[in-house]
Amino acid sequence: MKGCILRKFSFLDKDGETMMPKVEELKKAVDVAAGRERADLLIKNINLINVFSNEIIKSNVVIAGRLVAGFGDDYKDAKEIIDGTGKYLAPGLIDGHLHIESSLATPRSYAEVVLPKGITGVVCDPHEIGNVSGVAGINWLIEASQGLELDVWVTVPSSVPATDLETSGAKLGLEEIEELLAHERVVGVAELMSFPDIIAGEQENLAKAALAYKYHKTAEGHAPSVRGLDLQAYLASGISSDHESTTYEEGLEKLRSGVYLMIREGSVTRDLDALMDLIKIEYADRIGFVTDDRLPNDLIKEGGVDCLLRRALAAGKDPAYAIRCASYNTALHYKLDRRGAIASGYFADFIIIDDLENLLISAVYKEGKIVAQNAQLSKDLARPKANPAAVLNTVKLPKLSLESFKMTVENLNAKVRCVKASPNQVLTEEIHISPKLKDNEVLVDLENDILKLVCIERHGKNGNIGLGLINGIGLKEGAIASTVGHDHHNLMAIGTNDEDLLLAANRLEQIQGGFVIVNKGQVLAELQLEIAGLVSDRPLTELQDKLDILEEHAAKLGNKITSVFMTLSFLGLEVIPELRVTDFGLVDVVKAELVSLEVN
Amino acid sequence: MKGCILRKFSFLDKDGETMMPKVEELKKAVDVAAGRERADLLIKNINLINVFSNEIIKSNVVIAGRLVAGFGDDYKDAKEIIDGTGKYLAPGLIDGHLHIESSLATPRSYAEVVLPKGITGVVCDPHEIGNVSGVAGINWLIEASQGLELDVWVTVPSSVPATDLETSGAKLGLEEIEELLAHERVVGVAELMSFPDIIAGEQENLAKAALAYKYHKTAEGHAPSVRGLDLQAYLASGISSDHESTTYEEGLEKLRSGVYLMIREGSVTRDLDALMDLIKIEYADRIGFVTDDRLPNDLIKEGGVDCLLRRALAAGKDPAYAIRCASYNTALHYKLDRRGAIASGYFADFIIIDDLENLLISAVYKEGKIVAQNAQLSKDLARPKANPAAVLNTVKLPKLSLESFKMTVENLNAKVRCVKASPNQVLTEEIHISPKLKDNEVLVDLENDILKLVCIERHGKNGNIGLGLINGIGLKEGAIASTVGHDHHNLMAIGTNDEDLLLAANRLEQIQGGFVIVNKGQVLAELQLEIAGLVSDRPLTELQDKLDILEEHAAKLGNKITSVFMTLSFLGLEVIPELRVTDFGLVDVVKAELVSLEVN
Repeated sequence: MKGCILRKFSFLDKDGETMMPKVEELKKAVDVAAGRERADLLIKNINLINVFSNEIIKSNVVIAGRLVAGFGDDYKDAKEIIDGTGKYLAPGLIDGHLHIESSLATPRSYAEVVLPKGITGVVCDPHEIGNVSGVAGINWLIEASQGLELDVWVTVPSSVPATDLETSGAKLGLEEIEELLAHERVVGVAELMSFPDIIAGEQENLAKAALAYKYHKTAEGHAPSVRGLDLQAYLASGISSDHESTTYEEGLEKLRSGVYLMIREGSVTRDLDALMDLIKIEYADRIGFVTDDRLPNDLIKEGGVDCLLRRALAAGKDPAYAIRCASYNTALHYKLDRRGAIASGYFADFIIIDDLENLLISAVYKEGKIVAQNAQLSKDLARPKANPAAVLNTVKLPKLSLESFKMTVENLNAKVRCVKASPNQVLTEEIHISPKLKDNEVLVDLENDILKLVCIERHGKNGNIGLGLINGIGLKEGAIASTVGHDHHNLMAIGTNDEDLLLAANRLEQIQGGFVIVNKGQVLAELQLEIAGLVSDRPLTELQDKLDILEEHAAKLGNKITSVFMTLSFLGLEVIPELRVTDFGLVDVVKAELVSLEVN
Repeated sequence: MKGCILRKFSFLDKDGETMMPKVEELKKAVDVAAGRERADLLIKNINLINVFSNEIIKSNVVIAGRLVAGFGDDYKDAKEIIDGTGKYLAPGLIDGHLHIESSLATPRSYAEVVLPKGITGVVCDPHEIGNVSGVAGINWLIEASQGLELDVWVTVPSSVPATDLETSGAKLGLEEIEELLAHERVVGVAELMSFPDIIAGEQENLAKAALAYKYHKTAEGHAPSVRGLDLQAYLASGISSDHESTTYEEGLEKLRSGVYLMIREGSVTRDLDALMDLIKIEYADRIGFVTDDRLPNDLIKEGGVDCLLRRALAAGKDPAYAIRCASYNTALHYKLDRRGAIASGYFADFIIIDDLENLLISAVYKEGKIVAQNAQLSKDLARPKANPAAVLNTVKLPKLSLESFKMTVENLNAKVRCVKASPNQVLTEEIHISPKLKDNEVLVDLENDILKLVCIERHGKNGNIGLGLINGIGLKEGAIASTVGHDHHNLMAIGTNDEDLLLAANRLEQIQGGFVIVNKGQVLAELQLEIAGLVSDRPLTELQDKLDILEEHAAKLGNKITSVFMTLSFLGLEVIPELRVTDFGLVDVVKAELVSLEVN
C-alpha cells in the first residue's frame, strides 16, 4: 500500500496503558446514564456552566467512576448525593502553559497548592530541568507527575540550550524531541523561543515545528512584540500559539493571524488587564489562560490559572465564556480528549463554586473523586517513585579557590563593562565604569555598589568560570549564590568578597543545589533544591518560608532588589538585553557575542 | 519507564510519508512571509473571511507552495497576482460526514463534481464498500483518493455487518478497525449506528468507541431521535458527534449534552431548515455542516456541503460564522491540522467568492494551486492506480434457475406477509394479503400490484436466496435489479415474472454490478457499477444520464415510485421498520427476527 497507507502507529511499550477510559468504565457510565446502575455521585439542583452552549443551566449531574455519566432532571439517586442549590458546577481549570520549575517545587508539591484552587490540569514546559538533565529530566517530570490528582501534560522544550554562548547540562536535538513526542502525555513542542531564527528561516527550528505536526501534536510559540511581516513569517513555520502579547493591539493582531492566544498572568509578566477586552465569545475557541512563571508566594496567595478567571469574572466577563478560556479551550487547543467540559463521557474533573462573582471554590473533584474541599486537600497525594540518578547530584563544580574569582585588566586606565541591574526588571543595562584596582586586579567597590557577578559551570562538563561586575544590588557584605540560572542553570553568584563567594559556591555543591546566603565565613540561610538544583519535594509553603528568610538576610546585608534570588537567576540569561555573564564570560546580548571586561 | 511512558507511536511504514508540510516547504513559506522570497501568488484587496476573529477584513494574502504564507497590506508582489477587489476569500469547504458511495461514484468522479463547488475536503465513511470488501475496500478508498485535489479523510465503518440476519461481504471487527485507525488519513470510528446496543451497554460497540480514543481520534455518532437518558447513555460511551437531529429542540439538547452537532442536508434527509437557528456564534466550535447521503443529481444541481452554506447565508446568518461551520469547525472536530482557515502556515485551500450573498464561487484553490474556475475544473484530476482485485468481480451469485424464485405455501388459506413500499419513504409497512395461488405456488398478482421481491447473496459465500412479496411499486411487466442493497449489498430485485428476474440477476453478474431493467427477455437499460457493485469511475453526469434512462424505462413498465432504484436498495435493510427481505428471508425489523411468508 505504498503511498497510500501514509502513516502507522503502534504500541511499542507493552507495559504502557492509555489514560483513556477502558471499556468497563464506559459500560459503567452507560449503565449509570441509562438508569440501570446507581451512580457513584449525584450533584443535584446545581447551576451547570455549559461551555458548549455558553450558558448556565440548572440541572442534576451523575458521576460513574472517572466519568461524567449524564445530566438532566431525571437523575435523582446515587451512592452519594450533594445538594448544589445556589452553587455552580464548572469543569476543572486547565493552565495552558507554565514552567513548573518556577515554583521551585516538584509536581507533587505544586499539585498540593493548585488542586485546592480548582486547577485539575496543567500543560507544562519542563524547560529548566531539560537544560540540566535533558531527556532524563523530562522523563523524570513525566514520572514524578504520574498518579497525582493533577493532570500534567508536557510540551517538549525546544530551545535547549538557548545559545552556544553557554554550557548547558544537556542538549535536546531533533532526535531527543522526537523520542519524547511519542509519549501520550506529551502534547507538543514547547514555545519556540528563538523567534529571530525562525523568522530568518533557520532550518533546525523549523524542523522542530514540523516534528510536532508529524505526530499530530502542536508547535507552541513565544514571540514577544513580534508583529507585521515578522509575525506572519513566525507563524508560517506552523507555530500555533503565543503567550507573549502585552497589548490589546498585539493580541488582536495575533488572534486574527491564527494564533491561539494565551493570555498570561505570571508573577512578573502580567498581561491580563491589557488583554481583558479580548475575552469575548466572538473569539470562540481561540483564547486561553496561562500563568507561564509563578513564584511560590504568588501561587500560594493569588493562585494559578484560577487567578485569571477570578479577575475576568470580576471584570464582568461572561462566566461561561471566561470558564471556557480556563478549561475547554485549552483542552481543544492541545487535543486533550474528553477534558475541559462537563458532559456525559467526559472525565469528571470539576469544581463546585459557591460564589461565582468571587470564584469561591468549595470543592474540587478529579476523575470523580473529591480531592479538595474549602481550599484544603482532602487526602495525601501519591508519592512518586524515588527520583532517578539523572536528576540528583547534578551540581558538579570545578575545584574552586580564591584565585577562581580573580579579575584583572591589562590597561589600567581602561573603563570596564558592568552589568546594571534594575528593581523589578529582567532587562539589564551595560554601563562602563572606572574599576577599583589593586595593581591590575579589579576589586569589589562597595562605595559605588560594584560587586562581583560570577557564573560557574556546574554540570561537570568543562569547569568554566565567567566573571563580571554588577551594579544596583546594594549588598554591603557577604555573598549570595544560586544553582537556578536561566536557562543553562549554572551556578550564579554575587559577592562582596572572594572568600564568601567561594564559601557560597562550595556550600551549594554540598547541598546539591538551591539558594544560599553567606557572610564572614558563615552560612546565614539556605534553601536546598535537591532535584537538578532547581526544585524541591518539600511543601511549597516551606519553600516560601525559607525564601523569606533568605530575603531577610539579604536585606540585612544591604540588598535593595526585591526577589534578589530571582534577579540573580536571570543575570546569566544571554538572550535578554543587554549584558549578561555566562560560564563563557561576558555576553553582549544585542550583538550575541562574547565581550571583554575592558572596553576597547 | 513502566507506568510512565504511557504510549509510544512509531512509523512502521517506511514508504509512508506524512501529509504535513516538510521543512523545505516551511522555509519557503517563512521566506515569503518575511518578504525575502517572491510569493507564488498574491491575492490583493480581497475581503478575507477570518474564522478566528469572526470578521471580514480587507487584506492582501500571499501563498508559498502548498501554504498560506501571510496576510497584510505590506504584501505587494508575487509571481502571479489576482485582484480581489470586491470579492471574498474563504477557506475551502469541508464536509464533515458523507458516504461517497451514495453518489455511485469513485472519489475521483466525486471530486470532479464537488471541487468546482468550493469543497476541498470531505470526511468519508466508506460504510458500503466496507460491507462488500472489508478492510480491502477501505484501503481501496484511501488509495483511490490519494493524489486527488480533494482531501478525503476517512472514518472506519463501525457497524459491518449491521446485524446477523444477513450475509455481508465482510466483517469489520475490533482488529480490523484498529488496523485501519493507524492510517494518517483515518480520523475516527464512523457513526456508531447500533444506538440501542450502545444505550444497552453492549461491550463490542463500546470497545469500538474506546479504540478511537486509544488512537486520539474521534468516535462518531448516529442517534436519530435519541434524547433524555438514552442520549446521556449513548454519549457516555465517548461518542462525540451526531448528524441525525431533525428538530431544533433535539439539536439543542444534543448540543448542550456535548455533541458536536452536524447539521445535515442530504438528498432525502433534509434537516437544515429545522436546525437553522442553531447556527450562531454562541455555539462557537460546536456546529458543522454535512451532507451524509447525496444522489448524483443533487450533487450536480444543488451541490454538496456548499448547499448548506448557501442556504445559511440566504437565511441571513453571519457569513464568517456560517463559513466556520463549513470549514474550520469540522477541521477542529476531527483534529485536521492546519486546515479550514486562512492564516499563515495553514494549507492554502481556499475559494474566491464573487457574490457572498448567493455564494457565487469563481475560483477554487487546493494547496496553493487553482483547481477550478467559474464552476469548471481547471485540469484533469490524477487517475488512481488500477483498482485492486478485492473490489472487482465482487458479484458472485449462486447458480440460478427459474426454480430459484419459486415461492410456496403450506396452508392454501393462510394470509401471507407482504412488504408495502411508500413513495418518498424509506420506511416500509408489513401488510397481510391473500396470495394469488397456483396449487401451493405463490404467483405474482399484477392486478393487486403484488410483485416478487428477491435478495440473492452475491458475495460468493453461501448462495442464500431470500424471497418475499412487495406492494406499491406498480410495475406491470419486466424486472429491475441492483447490487446496491444496504447495508449488505446483496443483489436486490423486483420482478413481475421469474424469467425476467432470472435475466436481471444474471445480467448484473455479467457486468459485475450496478442497476438493470429488463423486460421480455431483453435488457432495456443498465448502469454498470463495476467497483464492488457499488460505484463507477465514469463521470457523475454520465452516471446520472444512465440513471435517468433507467427511471424512464421503469416508468414505462408501470413504476410509480420516484427513484425506484434507491427505494430498491433499501428494501433489504433489516434495521429500518417494518418488513424487509435479506438473503436470509423475510425479516420483521421490530422484532429483529426472521419470519415466515405465511402468517400463523
